[in-house]
Amino acid sequence: MRWKIDLRYDGTGFHGWARQDGLRTVQETLELALQTVLRLPEAPAVTCAGRTDTGVHGRGQVVHVDLPVGTTAHDLLRRLNGVLPEDVTVTAVAEAAPGFDARFSALARRYVYRICDDVKGWDPLTRGHVLWVVRPLDVDRMNEAAGKLLGEHDFAAFCRKREGATTVRALLEFSWRRTGTGLVEGTVVADAFCHSMVRALVGSMIPVGDGRRKPDWPCEVLAARVRNPAVTVVPPQGLTLEEVRYPAEADLAARARESRQVRGEVHGDRHG
Amino acid sequence: MRWKIDLRYDGTGFHGWARQDGLRTVQETLELALQTVLRLPEAPAVTCAGRTDTGVHGRGQVVHVDLPVGTTAHDLLRRLNGVLPEDVTVTAVAEAAPGFDARFSALARRYVYRICDDVKGWDPLTRGHVLWVVRPLDVDRMNEAAGKLLGEHDFAAFCRKREGATTVRALLEFSWRRTGTGLVEGTVVADAFCHSMVRALVGSMIPVGDGRRKPDWPCEVLAARVRNPAVTVVPPQGLTLEEVRYPAEADLAARARESRQVRGEVHGDRHG
Repeated sequence: MRWKIDLRYDGTGFHGWARQDGLRTVQETLELALQTVLRLPEAPAVTCAGRTDTGVHGRGQVVHVDLPVGTTAHDLLRRLNGVLPEDVTVTAVAEAAPGFDARFSALARRYVYRICDDVKGWDPLTRGHVLWVVRPLDVDRMNEAAGKLLGEHDFAAFCRKREGATTVRALLEFSWRRTGTGLVEGTVVADAFCHSMVRALVGSMIPVGDGRRKPDWPCEVLAARVRNPAVTVVPPQGLTLEEVRYPAEADLAARARESRQVRGEVHGDRHG
Repeated sequence: MRWKIDLRYDGTGFHGWARQDGLRTVQETLELALQTVLRLPEAPAVTCAGRTDTGVHGRGQVVHVDLPVGTTAHDLLRRLNGVLPEDVTVTAVAEAAPGFDARFSALARRYVYRICDDVKGWDPLTRGHVLWVVRPLDVDRMNEAAGKLLGEHDFAAFCRKREGATTVRALLEFSWRRTGTGLVEGTVVADAFCHSMVRALVGSMIPVGDGRRKPDWPCEVLAARVRNPAVTVVPPQGLTLEEVRYPAEADLAARARESRQVRGEVHGDRHG
């Protein structure tokens, strides 16, 4: 039976989502927890919607896993949280709807990057998921620049190059706002992301916000379609995967087929 | 010249505010930072408004310090943040108004205790300043119970006993609300607090909220005027000193004289 698991984690202590020999990763932590609570001979393989990079956080991560043994959603939730370390929490478990694939059924991923540009707002309690900058940011300029990047483009200029993998993505939302708590929040929604793409996009916005670059600059970077060393990839601590969007239940299987065709099983998306 | 310093800290890594030999404290960290940036032969003594206990956080801590050498507020802010560790931040520095005493001029301290009572809201990113509980809380019951404690009383039942120190305090506000982000927040405002008083007050509310005690119980505990072992002192991680309230500038000196008379220089208040 296939299960859908909603997951939150503080990325600070992890070498990202994807399992790597000898390194602490979210994937391995969850897989070992599943093995423990279900007393399985081997750890089951889990598949997530957004394979976050080292240090990137997850608040709306979605995972599926196929389990050979009987359990209930309520029991799995309670027992997983009983063995998971305090930087990972399962917030919901449910039987997956027919055709559901956490990765390929997804329509879009929503990330938020949080920045504090005023020393009066610097808060040590949230320093693990907010980037502190010294120069004040002009949110209107950043929105002007971000708006020019919307739509389907080849985002090669903002992606780490990987042979054979497409870098065409549909950027559905990219906007900035000042929150009531003194933060500047950038929301980035796309069908999928390449490795470090969100952090390169955000990195192109900060010099626009603090006046060092014109609002047209990120768009010029995009048009060149080659990675531009003038774009700083911002640190992972400010970035959180907030939400994964799925179609209605009847369309889950069709969406998964479509995604597999476009991006393929081999060249996985790396997010963040 | 006397300076007023606004301070924030993550209490996780500190043995509270007050300097203690061989232990990492917020007071010593700030005093050593002042000594470093001003190149003083000795660390200057700082005085704070709320001497938070081990593990309690500060978001609105206020400090005064008398410095023998010339500097500017802007320069002091910038240089202190340059040497302070990442779990302490100075958010503002100003010349103190005449008669200002961070501790004795204060009219009231506002603390907030944050609880998450729903696994769907458990968030590893904020686990350092939120207490997770398993049983759902009834905020209306908690408000009914909290309301009965308001006013000036002998809070000996909620204080650690100390010979000679008064345990009479004026509880100005004690209220609970559910936030938009799924937390239950308790706000506690008093003229001053005894050691661990806020955490004992909160500890008397949780069994009311989850149905194990009647809303009259905390009031009965108060009336007995002796420490009640049935009251659990909740963990410090959920508690943050959010604000210190002062009178208008003209009344700072008079308020300081009045507080010194009531509570004395020797028997200092311990907060949290």
